[in-house]
Amino acid sequence: MELDDIRQAISSTDQQLLQLLAKRRELALAVADAKLGQNKPIRDQKREQELLLSLIAQGKALGIDAQYVTRIYHVIIEDSVLQQQAKVQGQLNGENGPSVRVAFLGGQGSYSYWATQKYFTRRAERIIELGCDSFNEIVQAVETGHAEYALLPIENTSSGSINEVFDLLQHTRLSIVGELTHPIAHCLLGIPGAELSKVRQVCAHPQVIAQCSQYLLGLSNVKIDYCDSSSAAFVKVKERQDPTVIAIGGEEGGQLYGLEVLARDLANQKDNVSRFIVVARKPVSVAKAIPAKTTFIMYTGQQPGALVEALLVLKQHGISMAKLESRPIPGNPWEEMFYVDVFANLADYAMTRALEELNNITKFVKVLGCYPSEDIEPTQVSAS
Amino acid sequence: MELDDIRQAISSTDQQLLQLLAKRRELALAVADAKLGQNKPIRDQKREQELLLSLIAQGKALGIDAQYVTRIYHVIIEDSVLQQQAKVQGQLNGENGPSVRVAFLGGQGSYSYWATQKYFTRRAERIIELGCDSFNEIVQAVETGHAEYALLPIENTSSGSINEVFDLLQHTRLSIVGELTHPIAHCLLGIPGAELSKVRQVCAHPQVIAQCSQYLLGLSNVKIDYCDSSSAAFVKVKERQDPTVIAIGGEEGGQLYGLEVLARDLANQKDNVSRFIVVARKPVSVAKAIPAKTTFIMYTGQQPGALVEALLVLKQHGISMAKLESRPIPGNPWEEMFYVDVFANLADYAMTRALEELNNITKFVKVLGCYPSEDIEPTQVSAS
Repeated sequence: MELDDIRQAISSTDQQLLQLLAKRRELALAVADAKLGQNKPIRDQKREQELLLSLIAQGKALGIDAQYVTRIYHVIIEDSVLQQQAKVQGQLNGENGPSVRVAFLGGQGSYSYWATQKYFTRRAERIIELGCDSFNEIVQAVETGHAEYALLPIENTSSGSINEVFDLLQHTRLSIVGELTHPIAHCLLGIPGAELSKVRQVCAHPQVIAQCSQYLLGLSNVKIDYCDSSSAAFVKVKERQDPTVIAIGGEEGGQLYGLEVLARDLANQKDNVSRFIVVARKPVSVAKAIPAKTTFIMYTGQQPGALVEALLVLKQHGISMAKLESRPIPGNPWEEMFYVDVFANLADYAMTRALEELNNITKFVKVLGCYPSEDIEPTQVSAS
Repeated sequence: MELDDIRQAISSTDQQLLQLLAKRRELALAVADAKLGQNKPIRDQKREQELLLSLIAQGKALGIDAQYVTRIYHVIIEDSVLQQQAKVQGQLNGENGPSVRVAFLGGQGSYSYWATQKYFTRRAERIIELGCDSFNEIVQAVETGHAEYALLPIENTSSGSINEVFDLLQHTRLSIVGELTHPIAHCLLGIPGAELSKVRQVCAHPQVIAQCSQYLLGLSNVKIDYCDSSSAAFVKVKERQDPTVIAIGGEEGGQLYGLEVLARDLANQKDNVSRFIVVARKPVSVAKAIPAKTTFIMYTGQQPGALVEALLVLKQHGISMAKLESRPIPGNPWEEMFYVDVFANLADYAMTRALEELNNITKFVKVLGCYPSEDIEPTQVSAS
């Protein structure tokens, strides 16, 4: 076969593949509809296992290996589960209108911008973007009604928790209504013609600088220029049109500003992932069919063993913790507030009881929100 | 639609999807055939970008989002590239017979077992498995002709380099002919009925223990039992049939021994990946159409600046380094040997010249092998 003919055949295969992926997604949503009111969990890992084993056997007959089939279907299954969860939640809490206004850090091309696209694509036909210059401005946009939702980064595998956001959560009346994780792949980006050896100025958000600290130590004679967001860094580099001035950010973001990659994989940890939370004025309920997380803050006081006692309450009710983080209370520099994420639905009897007991033994407890967990652990099967 | 009907429709969609994936893989191999002799790179990232943009536009028309299309096609493109590379290499160096004998650490279900499956599935119809108890035994199996290939783990994102393997490479006559990376997801696995709170003994390979050190600090009153491999740990737990004795290893590996997961994500770093090398008695050539890596060891002597001078040679020839690692020379405890991975083909003029110069300025240089790089960096596009 000639190269052009083969490429033609690949194009038509791809077109059919996309049609099937679209059809399969519709069928997954039809399953969510059919299960409605049955109160059965959206996800059935035993069923997924059987599915994978059957697909692997079919793949083998067609000459494709188990590893390939598994990798493709982990993506397909994750998508199905998240689509179904979004649908069930929409039915329970009221669907969004055709468009949603979302506040996030930076403009087009920032990491928060991509995370916003990822999260809301499943939930609204159109996203009205409200790019902001600071976390404070983002929270205010929702508090004052300028936006319906805000997206905030809360932690990162390389740089840890983003304290500024934790501190804002102490004082806001907003509720956490969702979460997502998003891979963060930092690149050095410059205007066409820029060269790594001639770089004199690096523009980036302070969190990004922290995540790439080890790489940056290796660059000599370079000035760090802190920007409000990765997209602000892109704008600056584009406007300056100076090949010695470069930005750190995502490759696809930089492309929006005509920037080219000079180096990749800058983060201290090879797999750099950020977790974001979604906040809104009104809390949501999480359907029983969906795994839920609840986030609350508590102030235990400083008597010895105070934290252990609080954690024992969770243990006694069989509630497992996803995260525990302490933060100073503003104005009381030696006292600590605890942030706790648990795998539990606020409407569960165990969680209600645990919160009552925590109320009795601590000085202060405040629930920040209960929301669907978007950690879709891939189902493993032994393919042998 | 009734749930059963929807499920039927999903099954038939899946069957068609697999057929298309198999067809697309065949077409990718046909491309490699058609390009043969043209000496053009297998991978054309500009073409991939155009492909992704066109697929994203088609997807949008079908109601599926850019992120989903991109994730699916990153898997498909990586598979195509690796299939094509394996085919081109087979044509250049002689195809394997219908079966290959491969030596690796542990038995069915060890991490090396899965990596062996992943690597050789593209390269032979049947893998004859030669499970070994130590790295030394693995290398000997190939040296003596009991196996044609061996697979050795060389580094891990959580625990770093595996020194024992580096030291074996100093003395072997085998050549590195390939590499691969494989995600390592450590779980606690016990017999049905085992409970996390009652665990008294943890069986695992010492490297695995090192990779999970932070998690293990949190378990009190637990005895660590070092095993030769993860599969050896599974065998022990299965044979003991004691719910207080558990193993650390991969979930799909544990399933082969009837073990169930008690906890996941044990590694110190969330995304835990191991890099493996493949060794054989005869070196291979790497086709010009494929990105190559070359690994060599050198002993520079101890005069000041010796290493810098050696690295300057690489820089002057425009050769970039993927890895540099120092290891003591056995018997000479205060002298260091350097292991160097570079992104270069041994047959390149620049690499030949660089090695000649290194020969002149160092006391000793030995090439361990030149092999196709399997790091397939996904092509990014701006979907907006």
